[in-house]
Amino acid sequence: MLDTLIKNALVLPMTGAGAEPDCSIGIRDGRIAYLGKDKPEAREVIDAGGHIVMPGLVNAHAHTAMCLMRGYADDYTLESWLFDKIFPVEARLDERAIVAGTVLGMAEMIRTGTTSFSDMYFCEPAVAEAVLKAGMKANLSNAIIAIGDGYDPEKDRAVIETRTLLKDYGVSGDVRGDISIHAEYTSPVHIWHMAHEWAAEYGAITHIHLSETKKEHEEAKARHGMTAAAAFAKNGVLDTKVLFAHGVWLEKEDLELLAEHGASVAHCPVSNLKLGSGIANVRAMLDAGINVCLGTDGACSNNSLDLFEEIKLAALLAKGSSFDPTALPAYEALKLATVNGAKAQGRGDETGTVEPGKAADLIMIDTSKPNLRPIYDPAGAVAYSARGSDVEMTMVNGKVLYRNGEWLTIDVERAVREVEEYAVPIVLNK
Amino acid sequence: MLDTLIKNALVLPMTGAGAEPDCSIGIRDGRIAYLGKDKPEAREVIDAGGHIVMPGLVNAHAHTAMCLMRGYADDYTLESWLFDKIFPVEARLDERAIVAGTVLGMAEMIRTGTTSFSDMYFCEPAVAEAVLKAGMKANLSNAIIAIGDGYDPEKDRAVIETRTLLKDYGVSGDVRGDISIHAEYTSPVHIWHMAHEWAAEYGAITHIHLSETKKEHEEAKARHGMTAAAAFAKNGVLDTKVLFAHGVWLEKEDLELLAEHGASVAHCPVSNLKLGSGIANVRAMLDAGINVCLGTDGACSNNSLDLFEEIKLAALLAKGSSFDPTALPAYEALKLATVNGAKAQGRGDETGTVEPGKAADLIMIDTSKPNLRPIYDPAGAVAYSARGSDVEMTMVNGKVLYRNGEWLTIDVERAVREVEEYAVPIVLNK
Repeated sequence: MLDTLIKNALVLPMTGAGAEPDCSIGIRDGRIAYLGKDKPEAREVIDAGGHIVMPGLVNAHAHTAMCLMRGYADDYTLESWLFDKIFPVEARLDERAIVAGTVLGMAEMIRTGTTSFSDMYFCEPAVAEAVLKAGMKANLSNAIIAIGDGYDPEKDRAVIETRTLLKDYGVSGDVRGDISIHAEYTSPVHIWHMAHEWAAEYGAITHIHLSETKKEHEEAKARHGMTAAAAFAKNGVLDTKVLFAHGVWLEKEDLELLAEHGASVAHCPVSNLKLGSGIANVRAMLDAGINVCLGTDGACSNNSLDLFEEIKLAALLAKGSSFDPTALPAYEALKLATVNGAKAQGRGDETGTVEPGKAADLIMIDTSKPNLRPIYDPAGAVAYSARGSDVEMTMVNGKVLYRNGEWLTIDVERAVREVEEYAVPIVLNK
Repeated sequence: MLDTLIKNALVLPMTGAGAEPDCSIGIRDGRIAYLGKDKPEAREVIDAGGHIVMPGLVNAHAHTAMCLMRGYADDYTLESWLFDKIFPVEARLDERAIVAGTVLGMAEMIRTGTTSFSDMYFCEPAVAEAVLKAGMKANLSNAIIAIGDGYDPEKDRAVIETRTLLKDYGVSGDVRGDISIHAEYTSPVHIWHMAHEWAAEYGAITHIHLSETKKEHEEAKARHGMTAAAAFAKNGVLDTKVLFAHGVWLEKEDLELLAEHGASVAHCPVSNLKLGSGIANVRAMLDAGINVCLGTDGACSNNSLDLFEEIKLAALLAKGSSFDPTALPAYEALKLATVNGAKAQGRGDETGTVEPGKAADLIMIDTSKPNLRPIYDPAGAVAYSARGSDVEMTMVNGKVLYRNGEWLTIDVERAVREVEEYAVPIVLNK
């Protein structure tokens, strides 16, 4: 007998096949055990009539805890944003504040249909516990920033916590460790070698900010005599699996290099616009063969963690910046947030599509709302008309995390209170 | 005694003053009669604790009935979109279908905080009745398209219906008539003169598509030996009040010309990207002194009628395309959708801000949701974090049109049914 049957669904499987109406999804032990037109017996039945059911979304680049600072530093130049506002606050944040911000961010992600995320921040072993409790999936990494003469990796909390993550969680569970080189400009080459050796040893993904701003991209070229992407490749970093974030200023040769090495790029369109970084050429990345996925970046440069916004904006920007409305069609935009995101996380065999054998990481979108009617093409409706707020149910491994206004694993009122009473005073230095 | 008191609100008045906490708004005969810290007696009290109250939004460029075709023609080149998909459908649409689409579109607009819109489509006298019933405000215009040798204005339904609109509704009520010259490329100069004479006679606003695509902009120059904006100015069209839509390809001299004549431009960022038209330079328009407002365009090139998306995208695009994150700050982006929209509609004295004497066209945004916490700056929270779905109450002239999941003037289920059972078969030519 099945544990759960989702029936009467319009299923958008994201396998390349079209949307299938009046479909059932059977779930056993957290996995999809049945997909078809019958209605096999199950302990629990969810009626998805009037809903689209599709894979949960993957947020491939997040600093989830930055929800603490949502709206704290809007409309500043990037340098002032980072050095006057963000870095001083981050120096004050403790583990409790970071966990509080992460829980609030997860509440928003679950609400808006995200089931898995790649996080890069601080105190990630504590974040890992919070993720397990919330029931999401996550690739967690502590950003290694190795600047200053006295830098000693043995004393760097990011290094120590990365080791803890890899030891305690490994690289294959629902919560798993990634390694993070923060960026080219925040660490010397010997640190890259250290990170790469771990990546090889553990089979871990390396998560790196790459060519986000023009200034950063040009300075890397001056420093290394080649682009940051080429410098990472030359130093072996791309020989293991890499997830780059941004890639706004990547050059043609960079795209070829990344494709050749099977690297992924998390496109963060809202954040790239909000900080004035520019518009990444997603079409060129896809044409080069790069696995492009989507990220929200932190809520302090967004100011939302709603991947539906990134899906639509990715498609819109690809069209608008190329003057070609066919540049990134709806279905391909949805792939960025599902199939490609899962692949970037090393979860391609486990999630990202609705298929028997895969984890039941599913969302239900309520299509009864006027903003979603009529529907001529379900993929277009999801990509261009749906909002995160149209998600009525979010499920990970067959377990419901959110349904119809209720969070089942997070006490949202408490999460908001913890952020506002504990963390906000730290942000404001009060 | 007041009719209604909204109490405990965080009021964002959009008058230039900052947000005011614990504020009361008193309403009498549809107008704001009190704004302050007291709680004067009223027949009905609305507790706005935990909510931001601000002016209702103005959608300054819509083809509302195109909701019928939401998602019908995604990812086509502009020419194929218009000539293969849209125009053939529009030739088949009748008044009943257009009213059905308009009602569905109004349901979405009301739900997402829009209280007034400028519509350009067909059968507008019938649309006017639907708008009155829904309780919204609207400037309605029938697009005059005067192409073909046999064109006779006396036989053009758009001309006849424009006369009806102006006669029946005038230019100063909640529902009022505008005149629409569809675009430079769809009518000869003598038609502009005819339209302009009416505009002068009635004191009506002229609503025109302008320089939306590069092709259109360049062809106008070839045709007139000057830009479309200059041609309209030369022919007197700008001597009465004009609301232009798009303006993606406007040149420096065009901006000066529009500013000099007090013309407004409805920026439609989502539609301009989706159709591959480009990115309008809103910062340059504002710096030139143009009254820039926001529009959704039709749901067939968007595919939403949610102005919160346009507000955020307007700010994001201004920043991202100029590489300057200060290019369009949150508060200024909100002005486009409130104060400036009202002005573009000729309603500047009547709506667009929360001030005693103005109409009670107000929206309440629920800030208890995790995607809106914490709040460091209310304007930033509304511009960058709020979605239309966070609107909990929409009020026009003191009358509640939507509150907490319920539409009070539109039967939404019936509206959806009418669209899907009557209009969609016409779209699909079945």
